[in-house]
Amino acid sequence: MLTQEELSAARKRAAAALAEAGIVLTSAEREAIEVADFGLSRLDEIGLELVVYVNTDLVCAKELVLFPGQTCPEHRHPPAGGSPGKEETFRCRRGVVYLYTEGDPAPNPACRPPDPESGAFTVWHEIELRPGDQHTIPPNTLHWFRAGSEGAVVSEFSTTSTDELDVFTDPRIARETVVRDS
Amino acid sequence: MLTQEELSAARKRAAAALAEAGIVLTSAEREAIEVADFGLSRLDEIGLELVVYVNTDLVCAKELVLFPGQTCPEHRHPPAGGSPGKEETFRCRRGVVYLYTEGDPAPNPACRPPDPESGAFTVWHEIELRPGDQHTIPPNTLHWFRAGSEGAVVSEFSTTSTDELDVFTDPRIARETVVRDS
Repeated sequence: MLTQEELSAARKRAAAALAEAGIVLTSAEREAIEVADFGLSRLDEIGLELVVYVNTDLVCAKELVLFPGQTCPEHRHPPAGGSPGKEETFRCRRGVVYLYTEGDPAPNPACRPPDPESGAFTVWHEIELRPGDQHTIPPNTLHWFRAGSEGAVVSEFSTTSTDELDVFTDPRIARETVVRDS
Repeated sequence: MLTQEELSAARKRAAAALAEAGIVLTSAEREAIEVADFGLSRLDEIGLELVVYVNTDLVCAKELVLFPGQTCPEHRHPPAGGSPGKEETFRCRRGVVYLYTEGDPAPNPACRPPDPESGAFTVWHEIELRPGDQHTIPPNTLHWFRAGSEGAVVSEFSTTSTDELDVFTDPRIARETVVRDS
């Protein structure tokens, strides 16, 4: 849950990060930046800011903003409606992102999850993305990611986005952010 | 046809335009920038420079660079292999792009085609794209586009790209660029 003030402040911070990365938004896009707290009310630690450019029946493109040290929690995009699930490519534009996915676990991962005891972070194959680096995540593959100390801007190129179908490892998570008046 | 020197110079120009737009490329990407002269050997007038970030069986993402006044000639992406044809979204990042597509013709279009007498430019519905503006072109729809006097950088988000299947209105066009030694 976020207050209107928290939502507004996060949108401004995300818009500033995108502007610093040289990304031009329309004023309507700036005012509609999606702020996801995943229902945990700890936005600075666990959250994600998004601009959805396009999301057709075939293709989706977004910019993702992570505040310094902010984590997008572990999830996968399951098969649905005849699709094998969302395939997504992350391309780092600014800052550093540590992406964790299925595969050989890193012996000394760069990140610790926000809740080490929660059991909500189970994949530890580490991919470090710096500006110009990118990685494609196959459908239905567990992943989570965290920004370095300067935050990050990441472009996402994918098949259709159906966020409401995402499966999170942490059962406490609700994908839709609830905003209260004050 | 381009000489190696022309190819190299165009790659440097395109890389500079992308850097000015704040877009970070790896050195391998800079050295592999695609330069398309469409077989017409008039690159400054009719051509396109491309960086392909990803092109899977489902999704493609590219950056397009247009030099000042450069035109990408009229074409469509026809149905193929069970797909309705490539759906593509253009998002302007820098400069101005005039996109012409099927629909009501503009009474006073901003652009004249490079060869007004060629019959190779037949669609005149005009969409002006400035930084932050975008437009989605449905599959199998004729379109061409031209940069304003400062050139342009455009992100393209699409389904799979199969450039070799593109159908150009101008029968002289060959999509693949031939490079000769000198």
